[in-house]
Amino acid sequence: MKKILLAFFLIFICSIHAQTLLSPNGNLSLSFTLNADGKPFYQLSYKERAIIKPSALGIVLKDASSYDQNFVIANSQTKTVDESWNPVWGEVKTIRNNYNELRVTLAQKNISERTLILTFRVFNDGIGFRYEFPSSHAFQYFIVADELTEFKMAGNHKAFWIPGDFDTNEYEYTTSTLNEINATTGKYAAELSAHAPISVSAVQTPLMMKTADSIYINIHEAALVNYPAMNLILNKETATFRAALVDDPLENKAYLQTPAKTPWRTIVVSDRAVDILASKLILNLNEPNAIGNTDWIKPQKYVGIWWEMHVGYGTWNFADTTNLKLKDPGWNNLKPNGKHSANTARVKRYIDFAAEHGFPGVLVEGWDIGWEDWWGKWKEEVFDFVTPYPDFNVQELHRYAASKNIKLIMHHETSASVTNYERRMDEAYRFMKENGYDAVKTGYVGRIIPRGEHHDGQWMVNHYVRVAEKTAANKIMLNAHEPVRPTGLHRTYPNWLACEAARGNEYNAWSIGNVPEHETILPFTRLMGGPMDYTPGIFQIKLNYYDPNKKERVHTTLAKQLALYLTMYSPLQMAADLPENYEKHLDAFQFIKDVAVDWDDSKYLLAEPGDFIAVARKAKGKEDWFLGAITDENARTLNVPLSFLDDNTDYIATIYADAPDADWDKNPMAYVISKRVVSSEATLKLLLASGGGTAISFKKATQEEIENMK
Amino acid sequence: MKKILLAFFLIFICSIHAQTLLSPNGNLSLSFTLNADGKPFYQLSYKERAIIKPSALGIVLKDASSYDQNFVIANSQTKTVDESWNPVWGEVKTIRNNYNELRVTLAQKNISERTLILTFRVFNDGIGFRYEFPSSHAFQYFIVADELTEFKMAGNHKAFWIPGDFDTNEYEYTTSTLNEINATTGKYAAELSAHAPISVSAVQTPLMMKTADSIYINIHEAALVNYPAMNLILNKETATFRAALVDDPLENKAYLQTPAKTPWRTIVVSDRAVDILASKLILNLNEPNAIGNTDWIKPQKYVGIWWEMHVGYGTWNFADTTNLKLKDPGWNNLKPNGKHSANTARVKRYIDFAAEHGFPGVLVEGWDIGWEDWWGKWKEEVFDFVTPYPDFNVQELHRYAASKNIKLIMHHETSASVTNYERRMDEAYRFMKENGYDAVKTGYVGRIIPRGEHHDGQWMVNHYVRVAEKTAANKIMLNAHEPVRPTGLHRTYPNWLACEAARGNEYNAWSIGNVPEHETILPFTRLMGGPMDYTPGIFQIKLNYYDPNKKERVHTTLAKQLALYLTMYSPLQMAADLPENYEKHLDAFQFIKDVAVDWDDSKYLLAEPGDFIAVARKAKGKEDWFLGAITDENARTLNVPLSFLDDNTDYIATIYADAPDADWDKNPMAYVISKRVVSSEATLKLLLASGGGTAISFKKATQEEIENMK
Repeated sequence: MKKILLAFFLIFICSIHAQTLLSPNGNLSLSFTLNADGKPFYQLSYKERAIIKPSALGIVLKDASSYDQNFVIANSQTKTVDESWNPVWGEVKTIRNNYNELRVTLAQKNISERTLILTFRVFNDGIGFRYEFPSSHAFQYFIVADELTEFKMAGNHKAFWIPGDFDTNEYEYTTSTLNEINATTGKYAAELSAHAPISVSAVQTPLMMKTADSIYINIHEAALVNYPAMNLILNKETATFRAALVDDPLENKAYLQTPAKTPWRTIVVSDRAVDILASKLILNLNEPNAIGNTDWIKPQKYVGIWWEMHVGYGTWNFADTTNLKLKDPGWNNLKPNGKHSANTARVKRYIDFAAEHGFPGVLVEGWDIGWEDWWGKWKEEVFDFVTPYPDFNVQELHRYAASKNIKLIMHHETSASVTNYERRMDEAYRFMKENGYDAVKTGYVGRIIPRGEHHDGQWMVNHYVRVAEKTAANKIMLNAHEPVRPTGLHRTYPNWLACEAARGNEYNAWSIGNVPEHETILPFTRLMGGPMDYTPGIFQIKLNYYDPNKKERVHTTLAKQLALYLTMYSPLQMAADLPENYEKHLDAFQFIKDVAVDWDDSKYLLAEPGDFIAVARKAKGKEDWFLGAITDENARTLNVPLSFLDDNTDYIATIYADAPDADWDKNPMAYVISKRVVSSEATLKLLLASGGGTAISFKKATQEEIENMK
Repeated sequence: MKKILLAFFLIFICSIHAQTLLSPNGNLSLSFTLNADGKPFYQLSYKERAIIKPSALGIVLKDASSYDQNFVIANSQTKTVDESWNPVWGEVKTIRNNYNELRVTLAQKNISERTLILTFRVFNDGIGFRYEFPSSHAFQYFIVADELTEFKMAGNHKAFWIPGDFDTNEYEYTTSTLNEINATTGKYAAELSAHAPISVSAVQTPLMMKTADSIYINIHEAALVNYPAMNLILNKETATFRAALVDDPLENKAYLQTPAKTPWRTIVVSDRAVDILASKLILNLNEPNAIGNTDWIKPQKYVGIWWEMHVGYGTWNFADTTNLKLKDPGWNNLKPNGKHSANTARVKRYIDFAAEHGFPGVLVEGWDIGWEDWWGKWKEEVFDFVTPYPDFNVQELHRYAASKNIKLIMHHETSASVTNYERRMDEAYRFMKENGYDAVKTGYVGRIIPRGEHHDGQWMVNHYVRVAEKTAANKIMLNAHEPVRPTGLHRTYPNWLACEAARGNEYNAWSIGNVPEHETILPFTRLMGGPMDYTPGIFQIKLNYYDPNKKERVHTTLAKQLALYLTMYSPLQMAADLPENYEKHLDAFQFIKDVAVDWDDSKYLLAEPGDFIAVARKAKGKEDWFLGAITDENARTLNVPLSFLDDNTDYIATIYADAPDADWDKNPMAYVISKRVVSSEATLKLLLASGGGTAISFKKATQEEIENMK
């Protein structure tokens, strides 16, 4: 073997010159080099402007020679791929996967038993690269102590960032130049159930940047499996980000067995912001569907027993403070607090509402014992996932929901005691299937058990994938809250419909909330990795409605809540408000009833991170289009050309707009609904209030319908 | 609540004088005091000689005021208990539980929301004490950072010790004075699959000591649940041991919720060594049976596919080196190495042998895929516990074993990847029950996953109990290898028949082995906590029998291997050698066939730790007695009175003794079998060879049988 490898070296050793790879359209140019010490570097330019200046690559190993220097090129291959594939569900019906690839096999002087492969793929909208550790009889198991990957930026760009953290991504975004980054948890610390910030110059991916000459750059990763998530630590003097992998309890990063590979490091680049939002680069870098038949997977809208607890109308817990352990007999003798939301009658109310308005799913949180002291205890056994509170009749609700063609959605809050969840998963999923549930929302609030592990470390990354696999094996759809940020794995596990993994709408209910620009940044950051269960659709915006002393409120207009169903892509969308609130505004609610969740096409029309987004989408298998436009705290007018519509065809546009006097702060619930006939030649002028938005449905109109509108 | 508590204080505050508690027979005297700073201390004397000099008590908390000083006595209660109970199985039919108890409730100045209870129980053969943390609304969750418990010895005693370690108890014992303790892993380090030594003066419990005036003292713990194991760190200047609890990954010790309690700290004391061995104090301090019906639990002897791999006759693995991951398709295409022991034909050979000789159980190790690279990889997914190698036909063996009334015993080697085991336990036990298995041997070889946890820490302690509970719920008997050292939990979980948790006979197969005195120490140390699956019965003692180059051998005579079935108490006893080896010595093998594993009575006749042990036991529900006597490296004569036999009754004693020229080193397999008629007035003179032993069965003799012997 060694002799073969040596011969191999003699044949393939190349010079130390740069190898350059262009994108199919020639706009992007990636170069790979080894320096005089055999250290690897890459750089990237876009339309001949530097995007990434020469940046180091390498992996530091524990108890073994590192993959960091003394490299020689043992082999180098290029290829071109241009193919298409159809996602099970998504923003578009067909995705083109078109890239040029450079695959460099590196050997190290004096280390004969192993090689390292660097694979670069250059797409028209960015690049992905990763490290591969080929199978080697003599080098099978190793520990990653550090990753040396750098991203050396070409200037002091504007950045949209949240603090680097091993445990949470539920921060508000800050917009600043790179030099101004100051990533302290600061005002958020008290809001976060678990947080482990890294340093004042560390940020998370997806990291969105904009250069002084208006090039948009997004750094993230794709296909995060069996490896910790990557944070980025900035060296302000050189404008260089360096990978900072999430620690395990022993400050190791990853335990790998060859053949192994890291996730792809991704850089999406364009001089048009809408191209960033439309990029399918991360999905293309993920593996195809790995779960076989997917007929049972249903993108859907749902309502549920959820927001009413966030606003204080009800409680997750059945009793007030107790000090019970999971096995205590006291669970059979709880004193009800009278405010428990997940009771049979209230769930039936939601089932009735869902059936009346065409929502196939009803989520119920707070159904299982344990909520009395689940929060912040770092306790191994909180929930058992199979024992309902006495007022939640599992069998009766199963029958009732089935009689109305409704599916209840199970909730598994793990309280981040993941060892407890894993040992109970088999039983929990069996319980679900026996009782008619085929979708689960998981939650990971709190500090992780195994203690010392983090939400975003290798062990937890593997856990989330295990849950995706095990739910798939049980034909269960998955919606994970508080997991690691997504990296496109919903391509591989299409039952994994959505994640939270960012600061969702819920923060508006009990924290300082989310500023109006929040939703104009999320699609450029968090959503780059996959759909978010943001839970839009709050109509009762000021929460003193429930309690005069309650100061919290949603930072939005009502119309913007409708537009979020378009701008915040997800195949799983909640209509998050209470039935009672929707029933007061059934005209506006009609948009939520109508809007699709799965699409044949999506057109990002106008966008600027932190300012505004307008997107149009065509419903899967239908002729209907929908459009959503949102703005930040600034009122603005967006002129939206309707060229996405079929030519020479009349559509009836139903426009759900902010009222002229609407304002997220002073008059958030004022909206106007209008209808008009439009065609592809038209340009709509959308008047967005401060913190507002517009939602539009387009239906092909018959001549009779047009006549009737006159 | 606070007012009530304050009132309570005013009424019950006592003076700082010592409270003294005597054992029922008055030999032991325990005193409890608070010093001027309100720090708690205890001391213990035996027949008016100091055993434990005034020693500190207390618990250090993390992020909270510690339970260490400023105590006042809020309440103090004493009671006497004298009762009996019958274990499901054991050394005796009935156990007397007779103690005086002192229960002191301590409050702390300026801390009104909580109390601490110290409970002391003084038996005739020692004491137990523990800390209790009562339920408190204001003080529910806390983290133990340290335990202050001291054991201040009254002299520089002789001690039988192994190094303190968070991960392993598979050390050879050292006999030295306390001052001479030097607990380095030293020569053993390479033999241990996981070790985390604590310090050069740290030792493990059970710790056996002997004073200069021949008082025997044993320190251990009882009912170790939801708490880490206790090591002891010696301060040589003061001869004081201090508790050293096993760390979690964050160097915390225990996460508790009130009401909570520590295990009992136990001190067994006597001036007769045999009393130490006969003590039931640790069992008495454990909770009664918690698993309900126990009819299905069967103490038993078993054979199995095991020793033949240890000696190199076969392999656990089916193929030689591979580099597969658990899900790789390569498992379907392994290249057999031709030495795989757990193949259908070989297992049938063991089933036939077991059926012929009356062994109800056959253990099979190496049946499931994963053994090709299971060792030392610290790998999450090694085994799946349900996938057999291609040459192991689960269904056929199930049928075959059932046809011969044999039960196969499942093996679950976890490779210490406990998260992996926990998430697969439900499926693994279902697989067992479907295939006729009702007993499992678990294994924990290697470094623990969750990484940073230890074999003996709180998380793992809870794991072992979870396994006991889950196997009980599935009517599965349990034998745990490489677990934390036992503390009497087999009373509470009587399906937990045995543990390894010490250096077993297997070490003789591939390491420097166990010196002849090893088995004369284990009953005074490891076995104080519970039965050990030591796997005695090796007849082919020199292992160059299998391979001329193999230097390892068992440090024993053949007759001593028989005696171990008595001296090494367990309700689960392996006949560990190969059928072929037993078939060459069926006369000696007859003793293993005859000997019982469950007892109505046990009489420890003679004993000195490190030197010799002789014990007689009466088979459960029968009139038969058995006797085992072993010695260390010194040949010796033991005069054993047979007063345990029924008076005025003749018994036929079948004596399996070392041959006159037997010697563990030079002539280990020489034995003589003789029969004679004996009665309770007789004293047998047992001639034990160096490293030897004697085993005897006693059957009540009819006159005809006596005549026939003449």
